[in-house]
Amino acid sequence: MDKAFPRTPAPPYYAVIFSSRRSAVEAGYEDMALRMAELAQQQPGFLGMESARDAQGFGITVSYWQTLEDITAWRRHAEHRLAQQTGRRDWYRHYELRVARVERAYNKPD
Amino acid sequence: MDKAFPRTPAPPYYAVIFSSRRSAVEAGYEDMALRMAELAQQQPGFLGMESARDAQGFGITVSYWQTLEDITAWRRHAEHRLAQQTGRRDWYRHYELRVARVERAYNKPD
Repeated sequence: MDKAFPRTPAPPYYAVIFSSRRSAVEAGYEDMALRMAELAQQQPGFLGMESARDAQGFGITVSYWQTLEDITAWRRHAEHRLAQQTGRRDWYRHYELRVARVERAYNKPD
Repeated sequence: MDKAFPRTPAPPYYAVIFSSRRSAVEAGYEDMALRMAELAQQQPGFLGMESARDAQGFGITVSYWQTLEDITAWRRHAEHRLAQQTGRRDWYRHYELRVARVERAYNKPD
């Protein structure tokens, strides 16, 4: 079983699609990313997360949630807010964040 | 302007989130990926695409579309169908495909 793929329930559920280009600032980034992944998992309604970043610093992270309210609560989480602020200022040159409702899902499991 | 980020309109619109683990099969993969990116751009309702793959072969590609009908038409495109078949058989060890309706979007442009 490939752990890069979260096991999500049957739709509908929600996805937060976060696409980003890293800046050159390394200080604090790895620790924050690990801590946020750990913290997200403890939040109500969290269903899973997947993430890929290429050698040029472009990455996509998708987290999955039961409801929009769960996403709002996570966005407002104090420690997460601090990470967001530093992210905007230091770690990301550019990012796009989209909240979407997953309506259908297909797969080829390994 | 960072070309890794497509410029999408105000929501609502649709996203196809394709997460995949590559197999060891290289033959034909790069050509197909380039050709599909080129072909997708020519389809009605195509809004943009973003993609990241890490050194371990785990990748996420998100394409954006105006309507669900546009996504269905692209899925049924003959040349794309052929790529899908070979993908399932040869290029991907595991994949997950999710169709989602983008409801909100935020960004920090560069």
